[in-house]
Amino acid sequence: MLYAKELTKPDGRKLFLYSRAPITSVAAAPSPSPEPVAANPHLRWHPLRGEWVAYASYRQGRTFMPPPEYNPLAVTRDASNPTELPQGDYDIAVFDNRFPSLTLQAHDPPESVVKTLPANGQCEVVVFTQDPLSSLAALPLSHIELLLMVWGARTTALAEHPSIQYVLPFENRGVEVGVTLHHPHGQIYAYPFIPPVPQRMHEQQLTHYREYKQPLLEQLIAAEIKADLRMLYVGEHAVAFVPAWARYPYEVWVAPRKAVPDFSSLDEPQRADLAKALKTVLLKYDGLWQRPFPYLMAWYQAPTDGEAHPEWHLHAEFYPPYRTRDRLKYLAGTELAAGMFANDALPEEKAQELQAVAVSL
Amino acid sequence: MLYAKELTKPDGRKLFLYSRAPITSVAAAPSPSPEPVAANPHLRWHPLRGEWVAYASYRQGRTFMPPPEYNPLAVTRDASNPTELPQGDYDIAVFDNRFPSLTLQAHDPPESVVKTLPANGQCEVVVFTQDPLSSLAALPLSHIELLLMVWGARTTALAEHPSIQYVLPFENRGVEVGVTLHHPHGQIYAYPFIPPVPQRMHEQQLTHYREYKQPLLEQLIAAEIKADLRMLYVGEHAVAFVPAWARYPYEVWVAPRKAVPDFSSLDEPQRADLAKALKTVLLKYDGLWQRPFPYLMAWYQAPTDGEAHPEWHLHAEFYPPYRTRDRLKYLAGTELAAGMFANDALPEEKAQELQAVAVSL
Repeated sequence: MLYAKELTKPDGRKLFLYSRAPITSVAAAPSPSPEPVAANPHLRWHPLRGEWVAYASYRQGRTFMPPPEYNPLAVTRDASNPTELPQGDYDIAVFDNRFPSLTLQAHDPPESVVKTLPANGQCEVVVFTQDPLSSLAALPLSHIELLLMVWGARTTALAEHPSIQYVLPFENRGVEVGVTLHHPHGQIYAYPFIPPVPQRMHEQQLTHYREYKQPLLEQLIAAEIKADLRMLYVGEHAVAFVPAWARYPYEVWVAPRKAVPDFSSLDEPQRADLAKALKTVLLKYDGLWQRPFPYLMAWYQAPTDGEAHPEWHLHAEFYPPYRTRDRLKYLAGTELAAGMFANDALPEEKAQELQAVAVSL
Repeated sequence: MLYAKELTKPDGRKLFLYSRAPITSVAAAPSPSPEPVAANPHLRWHPLRGEWVAYASYRQGRTFMPPPEYNPLAVTRDASNPTELPQGDYDIAVFDNRFPSLTLQAHDPPESVVKTLPANGQCEVVVFTQDPLSSLAALPLSHIELLLMVWGARTTALAEHPSIQYVLPFENRGVEVGVTLHHPHGQIYAYPFIPPVPQRMHEQQLTHYREYKQPLLEQLIAAEIKADLRMLYVGEHAVAFVPAWARYPYEVWVAPRKAVPDFSSLDEPQRADLAKALKTVLLKYDGLWQRPFPYLMAWYQAPTDGEAHPEWHLHAEFYPPYRTRDRLKYLAGTELAAGMFANDALPEEKAQELQAVAVSL
């Protein structure tokens, strides 16, 4: 059971608190600054790539490496120095990003030599726990299950806005990927269009489904389990593996075994096993070099267009920046300019490294 | 006039030397190691993105931050310690990468759960000058014109291989983008398919051309010149500008004003003005913060499929990693996972910064 409480911050932003028990101990939502942020990002059309680019010029001033004594994601201890979160009994908090690249309030985009639009999406911050020194890997399985429910609840809520076409929860972790706040947290971007990468996945999955009447990733997962070379976790309902087609040396995918289009469609046993698969990967990552392992984790799900999506298969993709313990994989000419990834490592070899890391959930 | 000399290294790799004068003073091509590199990269199909990924597992051992006394791109001074280049009178050298992600010699790819192919492309290194302490910006205009001719010659030569579908010259510059050798150089990747980014450009340009009978980028350049907000160089035949649709804060495009599909199709006045536009951008970049400015520079041209491409417009795109003097732009969730870039800066503002940097060619 997921209990939720919705509050409004002094600057007008929303705060959502989530717990397994009714939330009764929180009265008001704080904000680091009472002034409304006049966020008015806009989109411009990139004519040669055929994709939208978001512009939010005030973002240059956003929080960057704050001193350790100020953590905006900690709960407020001193009312004269408010953070983003109140004290109280809750497990996970979600609030509107103060410096969004996309916001439903955007309006009146400037004219330009290319098409422009208001950037009518939404950017939310998801605080995984009240403990600033914890990590997603360290949270109990029940807490990770709750997070999967929260991602589902946020997706459902955001999808109610007619402009929202796609909802992407993700976590950037580590200074190597530019993260400035180390309190365990992720983000949710809700887009007013299906962005290029999910759009490409949508086309690939739909084409396959129409031809074979089987979801593409479900078939690939069955093939990976059968090949048994790259598996990190094989549960009754969920798996984790280094895909044969990994673009990053330590890339890992986490997914339910059966195609499920989105978080809200997971049943309880699927969600519980998916939490185990996810925690297994996170613990293996941190165990590999006995230090916090940086990554980008993205959760792909079906577009929020109100249609049924039997072709879509909810899954997470991890993109870690390291190619060995002390060498980063830089995205350069072929990756960024051509779009073809060159991977120095065979997925089978990197899978063996991660398979060798023992973990206990 | 472009003079060329082709040599073969002891390990079987090719070396091409280029100059404005006949090259008579070079007899043999050195190699850091006489042993042939058993390069056998392969491609695997990424089923959800619908794109190829290249695997070349020996690349983990490639040269990384060598000590300053060994520069493999310098000319060989001591025959007992050979580099990649011989002594002699030439301006620009091109040789087969010792650790290629793609090679025409690739064969017998392993079987996997997804489609695989030999990675039958080619990876070349382009040494811009014999001077290890110079830079592309510092080279005389005539030398930069020669480089434009060399890129054309290499494109034409590589296109003769039936497997090559696309040729991309690029330069990664700076430790910030992972460059380990600071001798001025770039690379050329020749692909056995049109990679995703040029493929997308191809579709956008073709669709526009069929509808309007005008090349897309030629029209956009005319609009940018007319708007006169983001221009860095406006010559008789070439331009440089921060595009209205920039994805990186300091992104700059360099192009001929009229649509020209590839380097070989440039006439002499176009090439001369394109060299001026390019050198202007490079000098402005280095002048902005009075220090070497890191970037990825990629040159897009038409596919090498033997067809006429009136829709295609040769141009360079620069992707610098900085968003301000001391802050990097990290590619994270929305860029890498969704494919939607969020730009902290308005292109008009960044163009003003670069416009204010005075340069003399």
